[in-house]
Order: sequence, then structure tokens, then C-alpha cells
Amino acid sequence: MPLTPDQLAEIEAQRATPRATLRAVSEGMEAHLYRAHPVLDHGFIRVIDYMGDDAAIVQAARVSYGAGTKHVQNDEGLIRYLMRHWHSTPFEMCEIKLHVKLPVFVARQWIRHRTANVNEYSARYSILDREFYIPAPEHLAAQSTVNNQGRGEVLQGEEAARVLDILKSDANRAYDHYEAMLSQDGQQGLARELARMNLPANIYTQWYWKVDLHNLFHFLRLRADPHAQYEIRVYAEAIAACVKDWVPLAYAAFEDYRMGGVTLSAKAIAVLKRRLAGETVTQEASGMSKGEWREFVEVWG
Amino acid sequence: MPLTPDQLAEIEAQRATPRATLRAVSEGMEAHLYRAHPVLDHGFIRVIDYMGDDAAIVQAARVSYGAGTKHVQNDEGLIRYLMRHWHSTPFEMCEIKLHVKLPVFVARQWIRHRTANVNEYSARYSILDREFYIPAPEHLAAQSTVNNQGRGEVLQGEEAARVLDILKSDANRAYDHYEAMLSQDGQQGLARELARMNLPANIYTQWYWKVDLHNLFHFLRLRADPHAQYEIRVYAEAIAACVKDWVPLAYAAFEDYRMGGVTLSAKAIAVLKRRLAGETVTQEASGMSKGEWREFVEVWG
Amino acid sequence: MPLTPDQLAEIEAQRATPRATLRAVSEGMEAHLYRAHPVLDHGFIRVIDYMGDDAAIVQAARVSYGAGTKHVQNDEGLIRYLMRHWHSTPFEMCEIKLHVKLPVFVARQWIRHRTANVNEYSARYSILDREFYIPAPEHLAAQSTVNNQGRGEVLQGEEAARVLDILKSDANRAYDHYEAMLSQDGQQGLARELARMNLPANIYTQWYWKVDLHNLFHFLRLRADPHAQYEIRVYAEAIAACVKDWVPLAYAAFEDYRMGGVTLSAKAIAVLKRRLAGETVTQEASGMSKGEWREFVEVWG
Amino acid sequence: MPLTPDQLAEIEAQRATPRATLRAVSEGMEAHLYRAHPVLDHGFIRVIDYMGDDAAIVQAARVSYGAGTKHVQNDEGLIRYLMRHWHSTPFEMCEIKLHVKLPVFVARQWIRHRTANVNEYSARYSILDREFYIPAPEHLAAQSTVNNQGRGEVLQGEEAARVLDILKSDANRAYDHYEAMLSQDGQQGLARELARMNLPANIYTQWYWKVDLHNLFHFLRLRADPHAQYEIRVYAEAIAACVKDWVPLAYAAFEDYRMGGVTLSAKAIAVLKRRLAGETVTQEASGMSKGEWREFVEVWG
Repeated sequence: MPLTPDQLAEIEAQRATPRATLRAVSEGMEAHLYRAHPVLDHGFIRVIDYMGDDAAIVQAARVSYGAGTKHVQNDEGLIRYLMRHWHSTPFEMCEIKLHVKLPVFVARQWIRHRTANVNEYSARYSILDREFYIPAPEHLAAQSTVNNQGRGEVLQGEEAARVLDILKSDANRAYDHYEAMLSQDGQQGLARELARMNLPANIYTQWYWKVDLHNLFHFLRLRADPHAQYEIRVYAEAIAACVKDWVPLAYAAFEDYRMGGVTLSAKAIAVLKRRLAGETVTQEASGMSKGEWREFVEVWG
Repeated sequence: MPLTPDQLAEIEAQRATPRATLRAVSEGMEAHLYRAHPVLDHGFIRVIDYMGDDAAIVQAARVSYGAGTKHVQNDEGLIRYLMRHWHSTPFEMCEIKLHVKLPVFVARQWIRHRTANVNEYSARYSILDREFYIPAPEHLAAQSTVNNQGRGEVLQGEEAARVLDILKSDANRAYDHYEAMLSQDGQQGLARELARMNLPANIYTQWYWKVDLHNLFHFLRLRADPHAQYEIRVYAEAIAACVKDWVPLAYAAFEDYRMGGVTLSAKAIAVLKRRLAGETVTQEASGMSKGEWREFVEVWG
Repeated sequence: MPLTPDQLAEIEAQRATPRATLRAVSEGMEAHLYRAHPVLDHGFIRVIDYMGDDAAIVQAARVSYGAGTKHVQNDEGLIRYLMRHWHSTPFEMCEIKLHVKLPVFVARQWIRHRTANVNEYSARYSILDREFYIPAPEHLAAQSTVNNQGRGEVLQGEEAARVLDILKSDANRAYDHYEAMLSQDGQQGLARELARMNLPANIYTQWYWKVDLHNLFHFLRLRADPHAQYEIRVYAEAIAACVKDWVPLAYAAFEDYRMGGVTLSAKAIAVLKRRLAGETVTQEASGMSKGEWREFVEVWG
Repeated sequence: MPLTPDQLAEIEAQRATPRATLRAVSEGMEAHLYRAHPVLDHGFIRVIDYMGDDAAIVQAARVSYGAGTKHVQNDEGLIRYLMRHWHSTPFEMCEIKLHVKLPVFVARQWIRHRTANVNEYSARYSILDREFYIPAPEHLAAQSTVNNQGRGEVLQGEEAARVLDILKSDANRAYDHYEAMLSQDGQQGLARELARMNLPANIYTQWYWKVDLHNLFHFLRLRADPHAQYEIRVYAEAIAACVKDWVPLAYAAFEDYRMGGVTLSAKAIAVLKRRLAGETVTQEASGMSKGEWREFVEVWG
């Protein structure tokens, strides 16, 4: 359970007192505010704040005095045009702030997206909780035999049990020792900034993460992708569900042009044109490498 | 007059319909929303949106579930501590979006602050208005005789009149020709992306500009500084007045530690310590260059 | 002529004294160093410095101790893989520094690429030269009748002559007045930071611009594109020619996957698949808007 | 020993073949290239490449055609002026690329500096080595009793021995289990992207890190500061020693104005001025908080 009753009460208290504002309001997002969407075994994402809505994208693109147009049709067309032609700056005019609880090894991937603002819970200053990510049995996968950075089949039987046992017992032992080293009961007590080094990468950390919509879409495209590691993909998917309620027009354009789209190389365009003209093209005749051809055939048959 | 009656009506319409939100609200900032604060002869700044308040800075610094503490005393102490120790990330958790109308030569300085989001009115796509910055007589200054990038005395008499006359007539002639080249009346009409090259740097442009509070403070420190060019400083000052109403605790810390503060070099520290010990120190004995010593004496006598 | 004899002599002096280095060296780039490649009527780009080569991309991708592999085949395959899968960080490990002379209205577009380092010649501090961009007759185009931000036919006859005459005489008059206002001959002399406001957007400025290869590729993709304004496109093309000599493998991958590639939306993929299966698909049945369909048909017929 | 004989041989091979270049060369930096400077028990920093030197800073500040001036006196004065007045862009014109081996908990602090390029060794793709940071006895410190994020006294006797024993045995057990889970000997073998989650934060990782000189100075100011955690400070110090040999004038200015300098608040300036006038000022009369006063007195007595 990611949140304590006290924390849940604190959240409901924040949701109990709406206030008046003159700013753009997204009803879809108001319903999410502060609430924890569970991810993995102890993690979550919570929307803490947001700025802008679909109309704000249109308004910035036009540098206009009022809100976006009243005709949703026009707004939608413009938003799709902006997305299609990589006009990224109007999407940067929306901003979201999230509170995220996540395993450290996921945080290490996440932080590589640099165009965002982050405040992480400090293990130099504070003591971390005893919470570790232990994969559910159906996510305990073997190394892929075809992809150096991917997973293959789910682990079976005794091996799966052995792995789970290792992960649990090592995490608990590491945490017992963390506490023992920190303790000032009858001893000096190791500095927190040193004791933390004993903790494994599946311990949970948390942070506030703030990002504009353009950079968030970039994050989602890479991390909600089927090739992303499962443990970060589920965070991306939970965020995507909130974004869809926040800026439905922009999200629909993102789904069509980015998530559901593909990029073709000049060579791939040439092959498709030959195919459309009725020709059969082999890998050898395509100019593509074997790996490239395999990826091409996955999409186009 | 920077705004037309239609634009003013549009703004008042936006202010007429408060909506309910669960987000952090800054009453001080709500009073500014959408309204144009005039700057220079035709410019303005308008706050279009904001995210966060003083409590949001505290909340992010603590990575907490609820709002900031209820004790303003504690929030203030923490905010001052963060500012003093250059902990910049909590201030990045607040965001502001402005609509700014400004002369092109000011826009060219402004844009050098890269950590911000911008949508500028496009003179490739649209036709600019006939609005030029013409300095008020008291701001028409001669080149400084001591500072290569500064101003000296105000221009006097005939010279002042001559300069104003040049600026006005050249601007108007340039705009007349701009219109004449664009015209499709009895001719093809030059492309807008080309015609704009005839317009001088005092023509007004406008943009939406979005920035986080940390980077805004950096902008204000450099541009509200007495050494900044007057024409950008007045924009910085107009923004600063809004920020003060938005996040009063953070702004007070900024004033004390940044705007009102100074940075001392190791050499300057050594000189001050010798002075505190009763010694008289000359420039020669200070290890500072003449320029550096002049700047030091300006502050410390 | 963009460079004076003195400047050319200075450049040749810099090229006259090779020095020993242990760093990665790109022979192709050494041939370009310091030399001015003319662009437009008075502009140029010059490569001032560079860091890395194709092997450096490979080396960073592998976080290895030595240089890239000796087998160019492998390096090429890896570089193409990285480009295809949007692994951008290895390309960020190469850096280039350029000296560029360009009209102000081009500089204003260019600066919108924020992830770069810039030092611009300061018209607050110094006096600009009397150099203006005047389009060659074949680039003097009318406004496009189909695209709000594009050009159509070349201007003809008297209209063309009239436009050129306006551009030249307004530029010269503006510069005459700039000099007259600055002059301290018998008058105080207007501050440089004010006098510059009289200069039109086709005056030349110059800057040092430093950027990593990933962000440079992004710049080239947008600015060497046929839809970019001609006056910035020629700069992008001149830079691209140097990049091709600097990192030939990375540039070839960029050409195949980015410059020569296209992005298909989910809807476009569906249409192409139906066509490959022998079906005829109309705009109405495609789910695309008219504008989108027009762009689709441009590529796929 | 951080490097194997093979790696050392590879490095010496790279140093054996100087090549000719027309670029700016820093002799001081050439001596460092590729060589590993040991940090902590298994870490190092190595300079892989650099761009620019002191003259390049001057050249960019002046947007000039040739190299910096021949008069070092002038260059030094200008560089000090730029540093003193926070003109950061000329310093951004120098760039450095490092190969760093460091414990994961140090890497997590380091990566918070976002304006840099990073390629990290991937534990999704590859298997990490059995190398862990175990503090030397003199760096095994207790939690500070006055500072929530600092260290106090060195641990003594049995407690120190107990801590070292825990750190070593937990690290080794975690690594044994990591290998056991990965093994495909008689079992499927857990995916590398999952197995890594069992490894503690003192395991070593490595990356290529590229940054411009301005942002590097910012990093060094925060991380070479006495309040930074020891384990990152030693990396900052090792880098600083190389920077000093690379750009001696810029580094000297950095030392004087940043590392050795202090920032005074408006309140602190007022107190110092009263003291210089002979007055005795108490904390109560200073307007400062107790914490602020303590920090003030640390410097000024």
C-alpha cells in the first residue's frame, strides 16, 4: 500500500477546499489532482499541479489576447498541424508537476531526461523507508536471447522462486544493516550520507518532477514504447492516462503522430514506393542492413 | 495606448468568470491575471498564468504529501535558507507565463536567457503593426564617456530634437515602404518573410514567455540591475512587481540575497578584514586592478 | 566581399602553424578550419574549432577506454543503429564552434535553437558596419498564395526594381542617420545602445556559435528543409557541407534517416497498408484532413 | 587498481601518436589526455578531449577573427572582468570531455547538474564489474550532531570495524547473488535489466561526461565546496587540478571570485558597514536569523 491513512487524509483535505481562480482550468485534470495512481508494488504518481489546457496551446501559437477559439474544430486542426510539423513551442506552454514514488533503478533512467525540474527526497538528510520493488512473478523475465537490452520468457518454477527469495532477503538484510549502522543506540551512528550506500537499487525513492508538455510527450514516446523497460513503462502509462484527461486534443494528436507513427528512412521510402508499384523487394536489393530490414518487415510485412 | 478597446474587453471577459480549482492559488497573482501593465510607450507585460506559490516551494523542498507548513515563520526561514545556500531546485517548482509586447532590440537581449519557453508573433506569417519605440526626452542619453556599454548625460536642445525627428521619420518611412512592398494592389506583393527586413529594431513585437521562478530571478537580477539598459530594465521592474505579489516570501529573500547583495572576491574579503582590523589599504596593496578597486570603493567607500 | 585582406591574412596566419595534439583529429575538418565559406551577399560561416569524430561517437556509446573500433564497418553499423533508434547522447559527444556573419532577421530565427552557446557582437558596446543583405533578383519572391509563411513566384520587372531600390535606399539612409546620431563631432553623440534601434533587420551581425552534433543535426533538419526560409537555409547548407567532411558516417546516417526520411502518422500507416493490399483509398476514407492528405499525396502520390 | 594492464596499454597507445591540428592547443591539457587520475578506492577521472583555451575565451568575448591578443596581461584583465561581472557566455566556448568511474550514489548527485552530456555504461545491456566503494577508515564518519546533512567525528574502534565488515560482506553477497541470478548455467538466467536491482549504491559505474567551462565552474563551486559530501568532492578536486592546467587564467579568476569569494546579503552589507564605522553589532540588531548570523560570524568573526 503506497500511502498511509494519514497521507490519504492529507490528500483528501487538500481536495476538500476548491478555490476560485481566473486561470485556465482543465476539468479532466482537476479530478486527478493530488490523488495517488498506484504503480508497481509500492510506487505511485500524483498530479500536484498543472498549467494550461488545449486552448492555451492554441492561444500561444497565435500570440493572442483572449483564450483559444470557441470552435473546437479549429483548435483541433491547429493542434494537429502543430504536432505534424514539429512546432514544439506551443506545447511547451503547458506544464505539469508530479509527485512520483519509484525504485532507484527506474529513477536513474528517468533522470536522463534533462529538460525538467526535480526535487528528490534526500537520503543524505533523511532516512529512507523499508520499501523495495519485488517483481510480480509474471514480470520476472529471463534475458532476451535476441536483444542485448531486453527480456525474454518469464522465469519458471524453482528458478523464479530462488530469484524472488534472493531479492527479498538481500533487500531486507541490506535494510537491517542500514538501520544498524545508523543507530545511535550505544554507538556513534554512521552518517546518513554514508549508510545509504548499502541500499540496493530496488529501494523506493520519491521526487517532485515538473516538465512542460512538449518534453513530457518526448518522455512518453520513449518510455511508453514497447521497447522500454517494463518498470518505467508502467509509470509512463499512468502519466499518459492523466495527460489524456488534461489536454485531450493534444494527446490525440500525439497518439496519432508519435505513439502510433513511424519514421521511415530514405531507403525505406524507396522500398515502399517500389512495393506500391507492384515490385517485390528483397533485403539485398533494399540497401538496408539485416537488422534494419527485420525492423522494417515487422511493420510492413 | 498599448491595447485596443476590443482587447481590453476581451481581457475583462476573461476576468469575469472565476472557476473552481483544487490547485494552489496566489491571491496576489489573481489580481494581476490578464491585465496589461504598460511599459515604455507602446509595450506591456501581462501575467497569463502561473503555477505554485510560496508554500509550493516549501512543499517541493520537503517532497511532502500536503501543502507547506501552516507556520509562515517556518516557511520563511526555509525559503531564506534555500536562497542563501543556492538550493535552486525548489524555486524551479513555480512557473509563470507572460504576454509581453516589446521593441525588437529589447527582445534580442531578452532571448539570450535560454532556459525559458517562447512563442513569438511571426512576421513571416503575419503583418506587424505600425508601432515603434521612440524614447521619451528624459531617456534620450548620450554615450557614456567612462563605460563603453552605457549612457551618460541626457541629450540637450537641438541635438535631442534632431535625434527624435530621425527616429520618428525613419520608422515611419520604413513602415510606409513595408506596406508598399507587401501591397498586392496592382502588383505581385513581396513575401512577408522578406518585407520585414526593412523594419528597424525599435518596432514592437510580442511573445508569450514562460519561465520558472529560479530562472526568472536570474533574469531579474541581471535585467533589473542598474547597469542593464533602461529599456529592458523597465520590463524587469514591471515583472518584479508582479512576482512580489505572487510569492512574497521568496521575493523578499531574493531582494535581500540577490538584488541587494554583493559578491566579494577572495581579495576583497582580505581587504575588508584588514580594514575591520583598523588598517588602511590602498589599491596598490589590495592586489586588485584599478577597475576592480573602483567597483569595490563604490560599495565600501 | 565578406572579409578584408587583413582578416584573410589573419586567417592564413592561423592556418600556417599546425601544432601537435593527442586528441581525435578529423582530417576533413582540418581543411575547413578558420576559412570563410561565403553565404548570401556579405555573410559567411567559419569553423573555428571542433571536438570529436565518427570514432568518438562509437567510443562514447560503448563507454570504452580506447578509440572506436578499427573496423569501419562496425562503426558505421553502430552509428546507423544509434540514429535509427533515437539514441541521441553519443552524438552529443561531438561539438563544433562556428563564427557566423548573418543578417539580423536570420539571427532572430536561428537563436530560437536554445541548446547552443552564443557570443554575439554587441551593438551596445561597438558600432556595426555598413553591410546589409539585399536579395539577389532571383530570390526576390512574392508572397505565396497557398502558404501563409512561404514564397511564391519571383517578382518581375518594375516591381522588382522598386523593391530593390527601397531596400537599398532605406538601409543606407538608416545607416547614415545611425552615424549622424552617434557622431560626437560638434554634438554630444547618442548612446550606441540607443542609436542601434534605427537599423533595419537586414543589417549584418556576427556571432560565435557552439553546439553539439545532436543539436546541430536537429537545427539542420529544420533549417536545411525546403520549407525553411531561403535566407537561413543557405547557412544550414553551408554548415552541412562541413559536417559531412567532419563526421562522414554520422552525416550519412543523418541524411538517410532524417533529411531523407519522413514520419508517418498512424492514419498514414493504415492508408499505406491498404494501398499495399491493392485498395484505393480516398481522402474521405483516410481519416485525414484535407491539408494532411495533400501533404501525404505529395510524398506517396 | 582502477585500470587493467590492457587498459593502461590502450591509453599509452593513444598517447603515442600525436597528430597535427590547426585548432587551439593547451599544452597543459595535452599532458593529462587519456591518463587516469585515481579517485577513491577504484574510481578515476580521465580527460578524453577538450576544446579551447584561455585565448578562446577572449576571442569569443570579442567575436574576433584571430586568436586572443598576444598580450597575456590584456587577456587576464578581460577574463577577470568577465568572471567578475557574470558574463558567462565566453566561458561556455570551452568544452571538456571526461571519462569518469564513480560509485552509483556519487553518480546520482552528479547527474543533477543537467547542462552536460552523458553516456553511462548500461547495466541493462552489460554486466557490471565486482567493484564497490569501501570508505577508508579515516573517512568513516558519524552523523553530524549539528548539520542534518553532514558528518561528524570519525567512527572509532569496534563500531568502525563492524561498519566496514557490513559494507564489504553485503556488497559481496549482493554481487554473488547478482551473478547467480544472471547465470544461464542450468537455468534460464534473469534479465540483466532486472538483476541489477540487487546491487547496492556503492557499486562503481562509469560514464563519459561532457560539459562547457561555465557549467563546469558551477559544478566545481558546489562540489569542491567544503560542505559537499567528501566522496564527490574528491572528484571535483581531481577535475579542478586538470582545469587549472588547461585554462590557467580563467581558473585563477574562478578561484578568486567564486571558490574564494562570498556572497553578502543586503543585511550583511549593512552590518559590515556599521562595523567598519566602529560599531559593535549583535545578532539581534543585525536583522539576521541565528543560523544566518552563525554563518556570517564564521567568515567575519
